[in-house]
Amino acid sequence: MAGGKGERFWPLSTERRPKQMLALAGDRPLLAAAVERLRGVIPKSRILVVTGASLLRAARQAVPGLPGENLIGEPVGRDTAAACALGTAIVGSRDPEGVVCVLTADHVIGDEPRFRDALRAAVAVADVGRDIVTFGIRPRFPSTGFGYIETGRRIGSVRGVRFARALRFVEKPDTATAARYVASGRYLWNSGMFIWKVGCFMDALERHAPALRRMAGRLAAAAGGAGFGRLLRREYGRIGRISVDYAVMEKSANIVTAAGDFGWDDVGSWSALAAYLPRDGSGNAVSGRCETVDAAGNVVLSGGRLTALVGVRDLVVVQAAGATLVCGKDRAEDVKKMVRLLREKGGYGGLL
Amino acid sequence: MAGGKGERFWPLSTERRPKQMLALAGDRPLLAAAVERLRGVIPKSRILVVTGASLLRAARQAVPGLPGENLIGEPVGRDTAAACALGTAIVGSRDPEGVVCVLTADHVIGDEPRFRDALRAAVAVADVGRDIVTFGIRPRFPSTGFGYIETGRRIGSVRGVRFARALRFVEKPDTATAARYVASGRYLWNSGMFIWKVGCFMDALERHAPALRRMAGRLAAAAGGAGFGRLLRREYGRIGRISVDYAVMEKSANIVTAAGDFGWDDVGSWSALAAYLPRDGSGNAVSGRCETVDAAGNVVLSGGRLTALVGVRDLVVVQAAGATLVCGKDRAEDVKKMVRLLREKGGYGGLL
Repeated sequence: MAGGKGERFWPLSTERRPKQMLALAGDRPLLAAAVERLRGVIPKSRILVVTGASLLRAARQAVPGLPGENLIGEPVGRDTAAACALGTAIVGSRDPEGVVCVLTADHVIGDEPRFRDALRAAVAVADVGRDIVTFGIRPRFPSTGFGYIETGRRIGSVRGVRFARALRFVEKPDTATAARYVASGRYLWNSGMFIWKVGCFMDALERHAPALRRMAGRLAAAAGGAGFGRLLRREYGRIGRISVDYAVMEKSANIVTAAGDFGWDDVGSWSALAAYLPRDGSGNAVSGRCETVDAAGNVVLSGGRLTALVGVRDLVVVQAAGATLVCGKDRAEDVKKMVRLLREKGGYGGLL
Repeated sequence: MAGGKGERFWPLSTERRPKQMLALAGDRPLLAAAVERLRGVIPKSRILVVTGASLLRAARQAVPGLPGENLIGEPVGRDTAAACALGTAIVGSRDPEGVVCVLTADHVIGDEPRFRDALRAAVAVADVGRDIVTFGIRPRFPSTGFGYIETGRRIGSVRGVRFARALRFVEKPDTATAARYVASGRYLWNSGMFIWKVGCFMDALERHAPALRRMAGRLAAAAGGAGFGRLLRREYGRIGRISVDYAVMEKSANIVTAAGDFGWDDVGSWSALAAYLPRDGSGNAVSGRCETVDAAGNVVLSGGRLTALVGVRDLVVVQAAGATLVCGKDRAEDVKKMVRLLREKGGYGGLL
């Protein structure tokens, strides 16, 4: 899944160049890293990238080794349930017994060998065909920015990866609830990654989202054919926006969670990016040219320009294209508000 | 006097484009405004601009109506005593009985008619030939950024402008001393503007700075001739850096101060500039394109770019050429340190 609106990392990310197309953590776009880390587990011929139609060209450049027919452009964004139905329909058209790994293109995974082990184990469990497998992440702090998975009875271990029943999916909690979840030891962050057998997910859609199940059936029947693009536009034109968590996960009983101890990070904002940038002696996290006089704790991306900081603390400063963002580090969530403001004001088209 | 190093208004000001060449307060460079406000008092044929040799072209563009021979380029910066000696020597070569008004090119004067009245009055007093006249500014707050003039016995009024004896010139004081000065009612800010008859200033140099007096004599003798440029380089090559305040004013007894109530402001830093920029609804002083989400009290110059502020207060953000400065508003004095740091680091030549 490589969709997204490119709001949180503005001005570096834009509608035409959202987060997954940026080399935020490393020297390759996050999408390229997401594909490359599957090496040895899933051959490129079996990797589908589902992204926005307007991003197809950029996606192709980011993952040049992928067969052209594996890049799927959604005509409009319809959230993750539609993307999952679309991807699973195409996999099912190629192999009705296939196992689908729904993975995210805009996250960072620190320990790739462990990730591959976890993926192999999850595929083995999903291949039984009874359960949907999810990756849950052990919470590092009481985040209010993630959904949580309450885990129940342990099922066992496969290749050192521990599996447990998922009792329920819960949406982003408030601070007190998040603290309670973390203290209990029973809750994991919902990573947004799922592994299921085609038939298992189709059954879940049948029960909880029958309109999506019908769409998936029609898409599977047309996959690879000449009329697929037109059919996809028509189908997407009449379904609603809904996340797979809400449409399926929160309602399903047959979900199993694998504890994903592979250094996962969603890098959800500029301030979270600090961990992936080199530090200067004053704890400023810097990409590009930056000079400081008594400045500490800042996150700086200079683009091709120079950023000069004098006597400032805990700011995010990002220069890109024709715009410079200056944001309090604890206000990085509000960058979205800025993007929406600019959109409303008009005249900033070239910068969005 | 239109010299200066272009440090305090970096990155907008640079060595090649110092403060007086910038349209900081209004639509014209400060130098152009300084010349234009003399209209009706001093004809352009009698206005000399003394600036750095490397700035001659920019100065000529800023004040197109000035005769070419009235633009004097100093081969190196030697502070104000040398510039005063140079300018007075040239005036003296044209008219030994001339009155010289030493005015600054990088200040703002809010009430130009009153300034012209004060200038006419000061010229009348200086023309007697006995005293050096200075403009003192009634302190608006206990600034530690200006020198002060202690005033003594009142002499009288000319054209509504009050004159008093200057008892002494004092350098930039500490905060407590500045507060004492202001409370006393006897101290004025030293504006750096002086009016003297050629002979009167030459006498003062003779007494307090004889090397400068000899230089002025040689320059006056060569003024307008073919070898003047070479002579000027030789003379400047062997004199030291010293301000006219230190070389002459602090040592002279025959100084008279005119109270300059004409809205003078030296606009000494980015934070001082806020008063001359349009305000948005949150008290941000802005030049150019700037959008804000919960940001207040900032000073923003965007150049041709967009500045986007999210959740920040009391910052200076200036975008120019290839650099962006982000500075605490109370730290604007330290922009100089940044310029020096960049100079030391090398590689930033194009931005300085």
